[in-house]
Amino acid sequence: MGDDCAVITPANGLKQIITTDTLTYGIHFDATVSAHDAGAKLIKRNLSDIAAMGGTPSHAVLALLCGPDISIDWLEAFFAGIRQTCEQFTLSIVGGDISTLPAGQFSSALTLVGTAKKPRLRSGANVGDAIYVTGQLGGSILKKHYAFLPRLDEGRWLAARPECRAMLDITDGIAKDLQAIMPDNSSAQLDLKNIPVSKDAETLATSTGKEPMEHAFCDGEDYELLFAVDGKAANADFEAQWQADFPQVKLSKIGQFIEAVDTGIYIDSSTNEPLPWIHGYRHLVPE
Amino acid sequence: MGDDCAVITPANGLKQIITTDTLTYGIHFDATVSAHDAGAKLIKRNLSDIAAMGGTPSHAVLALLCGPDISIDWLEAFFAGIRQTCEQFTLSIVGGDISTLPAGQFSSALTLVGTAKKPRLRSGANVGDAIYVTGQLGGSILKKHYAFLPRLDEGRWLAARPECRAMLDITDGIAKDLQAIMPDNSSAQLDLKNIPVSKDAETLATSTGKEPMEHAFCDGEDYELLFAVDGKAANADFEAQWQADFPQVKLSKIGQFIEAVDTGIYIDSSTNEPLPWIHGYRHLVPE
Repeated sequence: MGDDCAVITPANGLKQIITTDTLTYGIHFDATVSAHDAGAKLIKRNLSDIAAMGGTPSHAVLALLCGPDISIDWLEAFFAGIRQTCEQFTLSIVGGDISTLPAGQFSSALTLVGTAKKPRLRSGANVGDAIYVTGQLGGSILKKHYAFLPRLDEGRWLAARPECRAMLDITDGIAKDLQAIMPDNSSAQLDLKNIPVSKDAETLATSTGKEPMEHAFCDGEDYELLFAVDGKAANADFEAQWQADFPQVKLSKIGQFIEAVDTGIYIDSSTNEPLPWIHGYRHLVPE
Repeated sequence: MGDDCAVITPANGLKQIITTDTLTYGIHFDATVSAHDAGAKLIKRNLSDIAAMGGTPSHAVLALLCGPDISIDWLEAFFAGIRQTCEQFTLSIVGGDISTLPAGQFSSALTLVGTAKKPRLRSGANVGDAIYVTGQLGGSILKKHYAFLPRLDEGRWLAARPECRAMLDITDGIAKDLQAIMPDNSSAQLDLKNIPVSKDAETLATSTGKEPMEHAFCDGEDYELLFAVDGKAANADFEAQWQADFPQVKLSKIGQFIEAVDTGIYIDSSTNEPLPWIHGYRHLVPE
């Protein structure tokens, strides 16, 4: 800290990975989230990206943008959340920048550097691969969007297995994110009975009028891993190894990639009909 | 691009350096600066930090925060400024994140990774060292704050010379930034006649009522290098080598570090009196 750049010494023989994510008041958190939890969330959003590559985090730089009216107490609690989460995941903040925004505004951007032996990319899945997700999906706005644990151990476990061919972390809902690991000229045949619909998706559905399944498909910020496994390896043995190493983390085989019925669509395996949920959380990016 | 993290392969035998800087509408640029120049400035702000360590940039990740009302034309010109500057400095954007802000707001954060053989830090200066600056100081608000060229070649040249003991880029004015390379228990004895007061500092002074020298000391965003050189090596030979390699870039020996008269203050060498300019640009950071 204190110099114009941080100096980091990369470990030999490992690939280096880098990711950046923002956390903005009114977008990624609001007044119902404590400053401590907001700080923790900024770190964990980035850690989830590292997890999705099968990596290990090492260093971070933090850019803060604050309105002049922000209280020192709030900032201290925000930093405490950052510090505690960095300690929990053996991560160092090595530099940063602070700048002003208009009153009432707060934003932050964290860039995280890490290493990975064999980074697992989003590309690499084939027709015939099974599709898996960790944990439960949907309704994260009720709490999980800040209370999640990034799946770092699980990501490394998967990246060490060549039968896991493609992986990402679910940030915009499987409806959208599944597109990113889908092989060319394929469709996804999904088993709705195996979609792990969370209790919070069910709770949320009682007030939104949507089906819990729609929340599981389309809600953002699940921060679970979505990955493709060679169809021949996606068997009871693979799942038993997972259960032995991660007994607390539900693993669901939600379907498989098949030759294109219509490119990029999702097919209900029980009816052979297209599923209606094809859009996840929409960012600002022009379509 | 497209994966959760970018994968970069560090060069062997070099130290890796990392820096982050933001660019916010209303703070770092306004409607008088073109979108193209704003994009270029975001890159150059970070490049100036790399220059100050004597490094070479390699990879960047970009976080964008935009209000929903931003025009596609503006964003395209902003990206064109980024792209052109990256090409100019042989730098790749390898990842990023986009997120929303309230209407009318725009901010961005760039994190830049680079390498350096022997990163030159801010610490390392001693009593007896000469103090140098590159270029001209003050009045950058008129144009230079976005039209500057980061001193990458000059930074590497200096970092390769052990007689250059400490270095930084001037972002908050020498009044403030000189503190950061000042040895413990020292004062800086400055030769006002050698301070390179820019024409823009003089122009600005006609409308602010301040002296041009105050602008040279206290204005932000000069993006020049400020460095300490071993007093014995800070001679005509050193300066002639500089002129041979950088004939276009003015080099000024502005003073030296002396045993503390009063710790951290600046002394006018012609009168032996303390100078009044001791604060540069003040950030939000609590004092």
